[in-house]
Amino acid sequence: MNTDSDGAASDIDESIVSIDEVRAAAERIRGRVVRTPLLPFPNGDPHRPLWLKPESLQPTGAFKLRGAYNKILAVRDDARARGIVAHSSGNHAQAVAWVARDLGIHAVIVIPDTAPQVKVRAVLELGAEVELVPFADRTTRAVDLAASRGYVMVPPYDDRDIVAGAGTIGLEIAEDLPDVDVVFVPVSGGGLISGVATALKQIRPSVAVIGVEPELAADAAESFRMGHRQRWPDEAVGSTIADGLRVTSVGDINWTHIARFVDDIVTVTEDEIRDAVARLARRARLVVEPSGAVTLAAYLRRGPSGDGHKQVAVISGGNVDPELFTDLLRAHHATDRPF
Amino acid sequence: MNTDSDGAASDIDESIVSIDEVRAAAERIRGRVVRTPLLPFPNGDPHRPLWLKPESLQPTGAFKLRGAYNKILAVRDDARARGIVAHSSGNHAQAVAWVARDLGIHAVIVIPDTAPQVKVRAVLELGAEVELVPFADRTTRAVDLAASRGYVMVPPYDDRDIVAGAGTIGLEIAEDLPDVDVVFVPVSGGGLISGVATALKQIRPSVAVIGVEPELAADAAESFRMGHRQRWPDEAVGSTIADGLRVTSVGDINWTHIARFVDDIVTVTEDEIRDAVARLARRARLVVEPSGAVTLAAYLRRGPSGDGHKQVAVISGGNVDPELFTDLLRAHHATDRPF
Repeated sequence: MNTDSDGAASDIDESIVSIDEVRAAAERIRGRVVRTPLLPFPNGDPHRPLWLKPESLQPTGAFKLRGAYNKILAVRDDARARGIVAHSSGNHAQAVAWVARDLGIHAVIVIPDTAPQVKVRAVLELGAEVELVPFADRTTRAVDLAASRGYVMVPPYDDRDIVAGAGTIGLEIAEDLPDVDVVFVPVSGGGLISGVATALKQIRPSVAVIGVEPELAADAAESFRMGHRQRWPDEAVGSTIADGLRVTSVGDINWTHIARFVDDIVTVTEDEIRDAVARLARRARLVVEPSGAVTLAAYLRRGPSGDGHKQVAVISGGNVDPELFTDLLRAHHATDRPF
Repeated sequence: MNTDSDGAASDIDESIVSIDEVRAAAERIRGRVVRTPLLPFPNGDPHRPLWLKPESLQPTGAFKLRGAYNKILAVRDDARARGIVAHSSGNHAQAVAWVARDLGIHAVIVIPDTAPQVKVRAVLELGAEVELVPFADRTTRAVDLAASRGYVMVPPYDDRDIVAGAGTIGLEIAEDLPDVDVVFVPVSGGGLISGVATALKQIRPSVAVIGVEPELAADAAESFRMGHRQRWPDEAVGSTIADGLRVTSVGDINWTHIARFVDDIVTVTEDEIRDAVARLARRARLVVEPSGAVTLAAYLRRGPSGDGHKQVAVISGGNVDPELFTDLLRAHHATDRPF
């Protein structure tokens, strides 16, 4: 048993990203990412007030910048000088391209040809080389490039440095709202929730960390219920509007953290996701992508619960296709429902 | 001559809100308003990088919460217990209603019947009593209520405590970006720019503070050029899309601060304002009202200048009518111009 710097007892084994690794990540990325505030959500339930952690306000529009900076800054200069490679459905791609430009490194991004056009264009604008490949080939192509050209691979989630980078979000939540009771986190490959959960639980073991997935891509929720990891077919997860959460299975490191630290994984419907995007625009003045809005949807669906008082929804990103975004807002006006 | 706590020389007279008053306001409102971050704008000119100060993220969607809290908390408990009254075109109304609910005070808000419906509804939802009056009667009706019912008047801008509250924005900019060179601020009644300018200039005299108005409501720009205060007719200023900037003249205290501290007041067109709203949604993932977007419009219009390197645009609010907002986004997609 060891004791972390806040004095909380812990018996963390080496397979778990430690709070010290998260704190080191926070030092490494300081001043390079936005220290996002907690925003009180003005239309929450007063008996369980909600704060938003708007990672959509990072300059690339998503939390992924934290892990990408932490990973790339942790690599030796001579290794990363040859170049870096990543594969991603979008937000990780932009993050890696941003970091590469900032640090003057050549980056190749392998993007599935199913990704929204807005995300592909954003990567190109950042000066990265893009390879569009069929969805199923994305990982092998990136691995090939790393091997053949000697590039450093920057994995999207199944990596200690990526998890520690995401963990800085948990650290900031604990700093800004020390008596937080419940934190909702979107689940895709599991990088975000692994980091947030390991940071929060090592600082405040009583907090409940709730993962959120679309019903249409609920591999992690099913895994959690069954107690071992499930994989869903590509075709199944591809149908949710939440394009950032179309991952078929969580990663190895990520599953270890989820099994150990996460209290529940809940699902939300496509309609609930659409509604949450519109509410976030109207009531929190945030442009949020469907994947980032699942946490508000989960908060709204759960209603009064025994989870506790002070709740936080991590809003993971804001890179929504402009046409889709205006469609969602217009559909919401048409219902004329009170927010 | 006296010296402020940062050691900068100043010869501030008593008509000017001092940096100590701004610091006292910051203490008073701490934890009640959002400490907004500076957000790097990813599509600015790299030779004069831009940060956004997004006051649209306050829980009522505008900077006005800072002045309202500072004013109302500065009044004696027994005086404010009778109630408070304010008149406003919208964002000040929501701020006063929010503070009144938070502190358990009865509030009457006098709103011009030209205000957007979305803003009126928001005040009602906060539990305040609303009186809709013709635009020209707004001030006299509020003064009457204060006199007849013994309410404390919370003026929208022409008040030291309101200016000091807005000044906390300048204080935060100086804390987060100590070597800031240029700050753009929307000008309506002048409360926001008075506060921001007095705080910044007393901390960093070399900073340039640039006011921004719509061409269609450019009374302050004209006043600044002529060296004495001008008033524009209600009918003239009412035609700009920037409904928060439809004020016919800046206030007394505000003019004193503008004449002393502001370096220039520039104007932007209606098209430039519409374009800036869409860019802020797409590139900064912020829902911003036209009045709040004038500063980005001014930054984009000015192009390379001798003003200096590090620039900040204060984004004053995000309470845009939902239909107007989607119209602006759709019009922008239709042009298919690169952002």
